[in-house]
Amino acid sequence: MTAAPVSRTHIIGAGLIGASIGIGLTSEGWDVTIEDADAAAQTLAHSIGAGGDRGRSADAPAPELVIVAVPPSATAAAVAAALDAWPLAVVTDVASVKAPIAAAADATGHGDRYVGSHPMAGRELSGGLAAQGDLFKARPWVICANGASREAVERVRALAHALQCDVVEMEAPAHDAAVARVSHAPQVAASAVAAALGPLRADDVALAGQGLRDVTRIARSDPRMWADIARLNRSALVATIDHIIADLEDIRDADDVGEAVTDLIERGRLEVARIPGKHGGAQREWTPVTVIVPDIAGQLLRLLSDVALVGVNVEDITIEHSPRQPVGLTTLHVLPARAQELTRALSDNGWEIAAP
Amino acid sequence: MTAAPVSRTHIIGAGLIGASIGIGLTSEGWDVTIEDADAAAQTLAHSIGAGGDRGRSADAPAPELVIVAVPPSATAAAVAAALDAWPLAVVTDVASVKAPIAAAADATGHGDRYVGSHPMAGRELSGGLAAQGDLFKARPWVICANGASREAVERVRALAHALQCDVVEMEAPAHDAAVARVSHAPQVAASAVAAALGPLRADDVALAGQGLRDVTRIARSDPRMWADIARLNRSALVATIDHIIADLEDIRDADDVGEAVTDLIERGRLEVARIPGKHGGAQREWTPVTVIVPDIAGQLLRLLSDVALVGVNVEDITIEHSPRQPVGLTTLHVLPARAQELTRALSDNGWEIAAP
Repeated sequence: MTAAPVSRTHIIGAGLIGASIGIGLTSEGWDVTIEDADAAAQTLAHSIGAGGDRGRSADAPAPELVIVAVPPSATAAAVAAALDAWPLAVVTDVASVKAPIAAAADATGHGDRYVGSHPMAGRELSGGLAAQGDLFKARPWVICANGASREAVERVRALAHALQCDVVEMEAPAHDAAVARVSHAPQVAASAVAAALGPLRADDVALAGQGLRDVTRIARSDPRMWADIARLNRSALVATIDHIIADLEDIRDADDVGEAVTDLIERGRLEVARIPGKHGGAQREWTPVTVIVPDIAGQLLRLLSDVALVGVNVEDITIEHSPRQPVGLTTLHVLPARAQELTRALSDNGWEIAAP
Repeated sequence: MTAAPVSRTHIIGAGLIGASIGIGLTSEGWDVTIEDADAAAQTLAHSIGAGGDRGRSADAPAPELVIVAVPPSATAAAVAAALDAWPLAVVTDVASVKAPIAAAADATGHGDRYVGSHPMAGRELSGGLAAQGDLFKARPWVICANGASREAVERVRALAHALQCDVVEMEAPAHDAAVARVSHAPQVAASAVAAALGPLRADDVALAGQGLRDVTRIARSDPRMWADIARLNRSALVATIDHIIADLEDIRDADDVGEAVTDLIERGRLEVARIPGKHGGAQREWTPVTVIVPDIAGQLLRLLSDVALVGVNVEDITIEHSPRQPVGLTTLHVLPARAQELTRALSDNGWEIAAP
């Protein structure tokens, strides 16, 4: 990678995302200032190295790049204000919905200086205190060029590269349609599956297995951020939810519910196979080797040490705790060609291997 | 635990479940025979130690316990036939829906000798070749006594104990309603979320994060088993799906989609908190420590060795592979009180810690 051009950068919003970007850019030697409407958040950001104070003096040099990192609902107005305030600056933002922000930027007449960004950090966290300079490292950073000039796009690409992100260019509407289906609607569906547990007694809920835990893991998310996102991406979200409702109604109303379930599962399998696995390649079919691990400190390490002795690489691990017994089922996902050898070696070492 | 009484046991059905039970009981010293309508499956079961041949001679001693382990759709008829064929035997079955089987057993007039079982192995596998005697070890084994005599229930409890299962007694309708909500409907919803990826291009699907992977993991299941289950548990499944549809419709039709999403996520969070974690206790709030791990063999082991040096117990691990870069994000879930110390120690050892 060639040395990325460094822009004099101003960040608006010193929450988790803004402060993390500030720390990351500052540590790369960028000239960064940061502000927040909340004075305490701004002071915190300065003190943790997320950028300096831009000050209010008229001779302060204008930024070349402005990053708007305020909550999604406030982003469009802040982007428009920044485009107006700094007539030479490239402006980007970090909201997870892009078309409405692009429309607001275009409406200012300065859409050539606006580039939409969506750094996909993928954790529901908030506040500058949680900020880290490598928050986005190795994560996708979506760039929606919209009507921006090539130079403006390059400036934002340099930003993403400075934070060691993986840049993906997309059209804003395609981005919004995609995140509705890969992120926003799954969030809503997971919450709906969780909410449907309502009528069950505690003992009934205790029958839950790993499947339910997987499906509902993201149902723990903070609702505030999702409310904003749903409002901004309503039409794509509703289109996806309509798709899901139609499939569920087909099952509810089918003459043969078994046939309807078969049809839906078969269609779902085709789509799941398209979700990329490691390194963006097609999802590899790993073979699970499930080991019964006593719930004693150090057992997992001992297990992985034994695996390493066999020379088998563990591609993924899942741990399932037994609801009422002091053991856990640890599943090692390995290349199919090595699974049998691993199973035998672990057995020989005294490990109990569960179903298969 | 006192020594469990051993019954002369006959298993009908030599697939994964039947053969696994046969191997498990045989290795505990039980007197087991096994049959399958498919001659090859029966021969295989005999050869892998899942039980002997009962033979057809009239002087073969009658079984005291009959375990029906045929596909769910064939279970009711097989249970009724077994109750008729052996007038002194206790009959149980392993189908994951219980009320329709209990009704069929009652209809024979021998419901006092029928006890429903649901061993929750939780993996979608099939065939006797995959059988293992400890398939059910440390898993819940639901017993639905229905109208069975105390003696009949005790005989089935002894069976579950011999396989080292965790026995849970429930009424059949409550069991069916519960599994619809904790297992059957989540399966359908996960497939519907996956199917909704249909309109996306491959590049769009590549924006998927860990959330979508979690939600859709069970969408890979084999549809055949689920078709049978859906037919047998249709009313409870449909009631749950109706609950989910109603929540999704509320979001689709809301005047303020943000408010509707907030309401649903908040209700979902209350329910997710009821899903038991380790050992049936309330789900503990672990703190995630996410480490950027180069994708080189042995790194995970090195990481866990370093964790062990700090003396922190890892409660859970999740591994998220970066879509386009040769690193993975490994998240260690630890007690909140130890997270900061662990983060510092790993940092000191040269590990890159990701957010937060």
